[in-house]
Amino acid sequence: MCELLGMNANTPTDVCFSFTGLATRADEHKDGFGIAFFEDRGLRLFVDHHGARVSPVAQLVKGYPIRSDNVIAHIRKATQGRVALENTHPFVRELWGRYWVFAHNGDLKGFVPRLHGAFRPVGDTDSEQAFCWLMQELAKAHAGVPSIDELTVTLRELMPELHTHGTFNMLLSNGQALWAHASTKLQWLQRCHPFRRATLADEDVSVDFAAHTQPTDRVIVVATEPLTEGEDWTPMDPGEMRVFVDGARAG
Amino acid sequence: MCELLGMNANTPTDVCFSFTGLATRADEHKDGFGIAFFEDRGLRLFVDHHGARVSPVAQLVKGYPIRSDNVIAHIRKATQGRVALENTHPFVRELWGRYWVFAHNGDLKGFVPRLHGAFRPVGDTDSEQAFCWLMQELAKAHAGVPSIDELTVTLRELMPELHTHGTFNMLLSNGQALWAHASTKLQWLQRCHPFRRATLADEDVSVDFAAHTQPTDRVIVVATEPLTEGEDWTPMDPGEMRVFVDGARAG
Repeated sequence: MCELLGMNANTPTDVCFSFTGLATRADEHKDGFGIAFFEDRGLRLFVDHHGARVSPVAQLVKGYPIRSDNVIAHIRKATQGRVALENTHPFVRELWGRYWVFAHNGDLKGFVPRLHGAFRPVGDTDSEQAFCWLMQELAKAHAGVPSIDELTVTLRELMPELHTHGTFNMLLSNGQALWAHASTKLQWLQRCHPFRRATLADEDVSVDFAAHTQPTDRVIVVATEPLTEGEDWTPMDPGEMRVFVDGARAG
Repeated sequence: MCELLGMNANTPTDVCFSFTGLATRADEHKDGFGIAFFEDRGLRLFVDHHGARVSPVAQLVKGYPIRSDNVIAHIRKATQGRVALENTHPFVRELWGRYWVFAHNGDLKGFVPRLHGAFRPVGDTDSEQAFCWLMQELAKAHAGVPSIDELTVTLRELMPELHTHGTFNMLLSNGQALWAHASTKLQWLQRCHPFRRATLADEDVSVDFAAHTQPTDRVIVVATEPLTEGEDWTPMDPGEMRVFVDGARAG
């Protein structure tokens, strides 16, 4: 079982605390990790086929407070596809002059989409196939650059097609919004004023967010399992899709 | 003036030595840096809008011997486009199920290509526009996946169009080959048996390659200026394009 982590904020926020929580779970997820940080339209992507516990790249990410408004991270336990860099999530493509980032947890069985558009998988995972198909169908569905609301409508139409092929917990972002689809396991949380102290569920680390935030700050965190204790995580239902913009639910 | 560095090898090779030489020149190149490493079809891309002398990401790259068969690095001095992550070379797109990496040194004046295909710039540099146009024209010129030789023929037809618009020193790779086009400044070097000691031109660092190589190893290094002393760097002519495969000239 892979682990997903997503973050969407209304002000650039560092994700060191949550990533540390995620990396703690990396013992049984030795098949690589990846994390993508949007900074406005720009993107940093760190991937490594070493596990997040031992990777020098993961050490950098834990120690370097990259401030971002949208983050997607993935810790991999290979189920389909070889352990190789090209099979490491998140995957990135460009569409309409924006980078799109995608990470998936689960297995799609017998999903062999017809990829006739401009997006082809580089590796051999079912996840990258699904991502290429999503990008192709988004591109086909809109002549110009759609609004977030229009994209959400299209994505809601496309998700069931993937959901029927197996387990499809997914995070997707274009730097403006974070879309999350749950098939089996995905939970989300909003942190906003008044901020409190949070303690990582798997490690004896806590942060007093009140000391690091402004009253107007809002942050959404999405994860496979709750990363913290003492906070109100909301589990998503099977087949549910949510979109988050500026650190809040947008649909 | 930006600085380019490319590497093409017949066996995965670390680029720590050459990148250290490049980063030494970063004093006057404070507008960010980027480096892309192919590992077979997979890709790692490290970008930072901090200069390569101070960036924690550059420190990671200097210290973490990532072994790669194709590398493209770029240290930026902004001439067009804001200093922002989305304007940091190298740029990446996917075409025919492979990642393509591009870095450019120079200025293109009045180059406003018609981008009607699947590739759009995310940032606002002339370089990314040129890359999107190259990808579009490559995609149009070939129905299926072309061979390296066929790609080279097409690229030789496309380069003059960019060259006429200004300074176009460029490195391009799809993980199988490294293409280099010179407009003003680009030099290349092959290291092969018998390997010798090389000393960085700008820093008191030397490496005895004989101690780190096998007799069958071959490595091509391409750079804006010679990075080392005591090695035979070959300057490229204006308008010249070369392709390197498996650590050797292929055209």
